[in-house]
Amino acid sequence: AVPPGVLPLCRRPPAWGRASRQPPASLLAPCRAFSNNKILVELDESSGVATMKFKSPPVNSLSLDFLTEFCISLEKLENDRACRGVIFTSAVPKIFSSGLDITEMCGKSTEHYGEFWRAVQEIWLRLYSSDMVTIAAVNGSSPAGGCLIALSCDYRIMVENPKFSIGLNEAQLGIVAPFWFKDTFVNVVGHRVAERSLQLGILHPAPEALKIGLVDELVPEEKLQEKAAAVMAQWLALPDHARQLTKSMMRKAVLDRLIAHREEDIQNFISFVSKESIQKSLRMYMEMLKKKKS
Amino acid sequence: AVPPGVLPLCRRPPAWGRASRQPPASLLAPCRAFSNNKILVELDESSGVATMKFKSPPVNSLSLDFLTEFCISLEKLENDRACRGVIFTSAVPKIFSSGLDITEMCGKSTEHYGEFWRAVQEIWLRLYSSDMVTIAAVNGSSPAGGCLIALSCDYRIMVENPKFSIGLNEAQLGIVAPFWFKDTFVNVVGHRVAERSLQLGILHPAPEALKIGLVDELVPEEKLQEKAAAVMAQWLALPDHARQLTKSMMRKAVLDRLIAHREEDIQNFISFVSKESIQKSLRMYMEMLKKKKS
Amino acid sequence: AVPPGVLPLCRRPPAWGRASRQPPASLLAPCRAFSNNKILVELDESSGVATMKFKSPPVNSLSLDFLTEFCISLEKLENDRACRGVIFTSAVPKIFSSGLDITEMCGKSTEHYGEFWRAVQEIWLRLYSSDMVTIAAVNGSSPAGGCLIALSCDYRIMVENPKFSIGLNEAQLGIVAPFWFKDTFVNVVGHRVAERSLQLGILHPAPEALKIGLVDELVPEEKLQEKAAAVMAQWLALPDHARQLTKSMMRKAVLDRLIAHREEDIQNFISFVSKESIQKSLRMYMEMLKKKKS
Repeated sequence: AVPPGVLPLCRRPPAWGRASRQPPASLLAPCRAFSNNKILVELDESSGVATMKFKSPPVNSLSLDFLTEFCISLEKLENDRACRGVIFTSAVPKIFSSGLDITEMCGKSTEHYGEFWRAVQEIWLRLYSSDMVTIAAVNGSSPAGGCLIALSCDYRIMVENPKFSIGLNEAQLGIVAPFWFKDTFVNVVGHRVAERSLQLGILHPAPEALKIGLVDELVPEEKLQEKAAAVMAQWLALPDHARQLTKSMMRKAVLDRLIAHREEDIQNFISFVSKESIQKSLRMYMEMLKKKKS
Repeated sequence: AVPPGVLPLCRRPPAWGRASRQPPASLLAPCRAFSNNKILVELDESSGVATMKFKSPPVNSLSLDFLTEFCISLEKLENDRACRGVIFTSAVPKIFSSGLDITEMCGKSTEHYGEFWRAVQEIWLRLYSSDMVTIAAVNGSSPAGGCLIALSCDYRIMVENPKFSIGLNEAQLGIVAPFWFKDTFVNVVGHRVAERSLQLGILHPAPEALKIGLVDELVPEEKLQEKAAAVMAQWLALPDHARQLTKSMMRKAVLDRLIAHREEDIQNFISFVSKESIQKSLRMYMEMLKKKKS
Repeated sequence: AVPPGVLPLCRRPPAWGRASRQPPASLLAPCRAFSNNKILVELDESSGVATMKFKSPPVNSLSLDFLTEFCISLEKLENDRACRGVIFTSAVPKIFSSGLDITEMCGKSTEHYGEFWRAVQEIWLRLYSSDMVTIAAVNGSSPAGGCLIALSCDYRIMVENPKFSIGLNEAQLGIVAPFWFKDTFVNVVGHRVAERSLQLGILHPAPEALKIGLVDELVPEEKLQEKAAAVMAQWLALPDHARQLTKSMMRKAVLDRLIAHREEDIQNFISFVSKESIQKSLRMYMEMLKKKKS
């Protein structure tokens, strides 16, 4: 707990606060990039802003490999003093991320289920507690785990296409979003909206997502990156340290809850997903997806 | 805590999920009914939907007898595998339920007060945690305990007549809504709206109730049952088990709080209502009601 | 926990409830006033309503002296049975209160910091838990600690001038609002709005403050006192005792949290504000303010 301050009646931070915190602009290396099989990262050193593009067709599903690379990329940026903010977006048309990869939950060993679930927890813990400014530029549909990634950011901008939808639709598959998905959701849309949306497993079309506060604004697809950069500049105008402490104060209770019950949550997942009834449901669902494709 | 799922981009659950969970339609007994002095229940076995009609004129007040029969009817449905959802509505014109029956709190023994209060707790505990889909079809005014019944359902549809109002107006009588009324209210309308509404004991006319989220939608009186059936069908399209676990996850904290303090809450009620000042207030209030009638 | 009541379908409390609770109107002493260097208080004994005017130019900053006199004035009214409600407003044009006085945090002893912070805590504890009806008539800008005073009242009316702004803008100064500022804010505007507003240190222009629920209504400056009196009359129409218990039920969790961690919170403040980096920031900020003036 630290003290409140006094006035400035201007709405922008004083110049002295901003200037001293900007990373040194370098004329030699204004942009660095690194990538792996699933994710492309570009860091603009002059602005301190990285863009992380999910490029794992067909639907950017969150496989164990994807989650591992996502985690490594995040950690790299977090440790890079030149980076102050990240914009997450998709390189795959029409989809931001389809959420957790069902094949990781089907016909595997309990060890595998445990490893997979730990990776899901890990990405959320890192994202939701990130010291960097995190903005989701949602340029496609974003169900389940894809929605969780957006919910864990500081700000969500979505393409205004009503064919794109977003939500925690787990209930529709006969499964239940874990309590920390729910806590993250409630922190964004409030208890009542979350209760109805989770029970019905609603995928909200973009205009509805805006209305319930699940995303912060809608823009035409061609304006998305420009808008994300403008919002990022607004957030980076604040002194990092105060912003980070404030973010931590707001999110600590929900983060601590998973941290305190992490192993229990993994055991729950393993025993749930190992049930024959759930395995059967997931197999049927995967077959339906295959038929849909062909 | 159980796992999140993956995508389906369609907004309806897959056919395999629904079909297997619908109760077997019976050509022989499509509708069963049972009733008692206060409540009429009709169960349509083909849809799995029951309608519970409060028929205790003049105002469907929640007497000990009413609460007991309400509780038995609920339990019967909860144990009937053919029933998946209940619509609550009133058979008395212009009133949904007037709330707790004041005569139960006036000039009775402490044993009676304790028994009465336990019945009030019981109906809330059952309703708020019900595995069935619960929809309030609010076709009249619904103050205090009447409002609590609506708040405890999954969804609230109200007749759009601005003469009908709904709210927790206890403060206007000089009494205070118990903490679990308050918790249920906050879960629906949020902290700020609840704080003001409870302190002022506001009865919100239907249009205002919609605006603050106290009810989910308004319809003309003649469309109420049709609308309730349509909403029920939407909720029943989800697999029961996932929906029930999700509901429990959302409501558990508030339910557990009363369960942990149930006996204490009963003692509080007894000692509060036994005070001479409160007895006097309630007697004056009842006399005022009598005069109003004549 | 005390019991819910039954119906009245009228929206005003019954006459018997109001009449018996109004303080005796006195023809001899309808209005009493007292004042000190910083604050002017006028109590209208016939209505039971006091007006507390902040008159500490240039910006009503919350110095240790101001907080002490504020506290004494509040306590006086709280102990005066003729007083049931207070309206807070400013006698200084264009500013409600600029928040905590930075000079109290700069170049002083640790004893002084401790004494100052305890006074800040004290005023919040008293205001947020006051048995009186408290209304903020915000007739000017109200950043940081000024916003906290408004947030701690039962109702907020602001002048509809878009040049006046209100918010917890601590992050803009490189400092962090304490957890109980945050808790109070979340109780009014909800988690998501608070998270973004606190991280960006936003000062919301009056129309935006209304939109996010940070204030309850906007009025033209010349109508402010009249409106505040009308709202006060509405709140005073309720029986005091039930209203007070309801208020306490709504705010107890947040109040208890500071009470449980009060000394720790003071130590946190002292060690934070004693840091050379923070002292330097505050000195630079004060110099900027001085230049701005000249």
